[in-house]
Amino acid sequence: MRYKCTVAYDGYNYVGFQSQINGVAIQDVIEEKLKIIFNDDIRIVMASRTDSGVHALGQVFHFDHEKVIDSYRLKGSLNGLLPKDIHIMNVETVDESFHARYSVKAKKYEYHINIGEYDVFSRNRAYQCYYKLDMDLLKKGAELFIGRHDFGSFNTSSYEDYPDQTREIFSMRVIEHGSKVIIEVIGDGFLRHMVRMIAGTLIDLARGQKTLDTVKDMIDHPKKSTHRYNIDPCGLYLCEIYYD
Amino acid sequence: MRYKCTVAYDGYNYVGFQSQINGVAIQDVIEEKLKIIFNDDIRIVMASRTDSGVHALGQVFHFDHEKVIDSYRLKGSLNGLLPKDIHIMNVETVDESFHARYSVKAKKYEYHINIGEYDVFSRNRAYQCYYKLDMDLLKKGAELFIGRHDFGSFNTSSYEDYPDQTREIFSMRVIEHGSKVIIEVIGDGFLRHMVRMIAGTLIDLARGQKTLDTVKDMIDHPKKSTHRYNIDPCGLYLCEIYYD
Repeated sequence: MRYKCTVAYDGYNYVGFQSQINGVAIQDVIEEKLKIIFNDDIRIVMASRTDSGVHALGQVFHFDHEKVIDSYRLKGSLNGLLPKDIHIMNVETVDESFHARYSVKAKKYEYHINIGEYDVFSRNRAYQCYYKLDMDLLKKGAELFIGRHDFGSFNTSSYEDYPDQTREIFSMRVIEHGSKVIIEVIGDGFLRHMVRMIAGTLIDLARGQKTLDTVKDMIDHPKKSTHRYNIDPCGLYLCEIYYD
Repeated sequence: MRYKCTVAYDGYNYVGFQSQINGVAIQDVIEEKLKIIFNDDIRIVMASRTDSGVHALGQVFHFDHEKVIDSYRLKGSLNGLLPKDIHIMNVETVDESFHARYSVKAKKYEYHINIGEYDVFSRNRAYQCYYKLDMDLLKKGAELFIGRHDFGSFNTSSYEDYPDQTREIFSMRVIEHGSKVIIEVIGDGFLRHMVRMIAGTLIDLARGQKTLDTVKDMIDHPKKSTHRYNIDPCGLYLCEIYYD
């Protein structure tokens, strides 16, 4: 039996979704609870790695086990065992042809920025921006990323390790909501640190540290040296994984 | 020199605003930082106690010291020293006639309820309600509280200790925002646990455990035995203190 699960988590207390040697990963916690329920070692397959401190509203993973447990009951059992910062949103049984990673058609990420007074309730959940942002420029910059590009300027993997750095961004939106700005991006796949590097570039643009021409040039002529920092992971949310 | 400060905090990690023997209070943390800045023991006077786990967006306190520090710099120094879950929103110098507690004209509280799927990001910040709520009944019930009443049924102090339990509620609003319901109340003063007991009563009403007549009777004929539990403090926010 193949189980497909959708999970939300506050990533602040974890080293990321995937198991690491340097701390507790969300995967470790989930596998530990599945072991209690299935009385067996279970290895889960995730749709997407998320870095340390990154959040998810709709991460997806699958795993296989011969034991048949009703989806609704499995969800309840898992949530009863999981800590309060990890929550299974949905469980369903799927065909063996479904694969949490290989079947992915698109992913939606959001990057949250607080542009107002520092907010205790947004700590570890949004990037606190103390610069004045030109929202018009932010929106114009975001549009440049839509389409199929080599995103070499916007990720931290070398071309030796990842020769093909071409991905397609289907949509980019900048949403203003009170003192919060959300950069929403939907694409067919994302390279290491890609969303954070795009968000960081757009913030640089909107605060006057880069021009639209510079950003366009970074997209048109990918280079590994033009943007070399990763903005705060706490602003990043993996929102949704799209399958067929 | 009398300093008036407005402070926001996430109350989850504290035993409340006021110093207690059983743990760290927000007052302790602020006084510790003021001592560093003024190089002197300073006792602050708060507008309102808040219980363990209760949050604030606009708590107010004052303190006196002969040393004159520019408001903007004092705010910056304090915020530089305070932990990330306590933030000074404003500092101003005021006349000696101002008193953080005695000069209060009204206070605004909100009680936050999550009626949707459990949300990891609302944990410790909203009451997770698994019951179906009749929003119409919730709104009708809220209206009953408006006006000047003896709130004896809705607080945990005895009449021996507090003979006068009459307070005025100026406004009550029920705000629906996605899967969140906010009960907003403005009044001239609130007794111990009063907002939480009103919120708990309204939730009982909206989930069919109490009737409008029962609630009306609890208001008209105050009795200490009709509602004896305090709903989760994590849903409560002290939003604003109004002065002249």
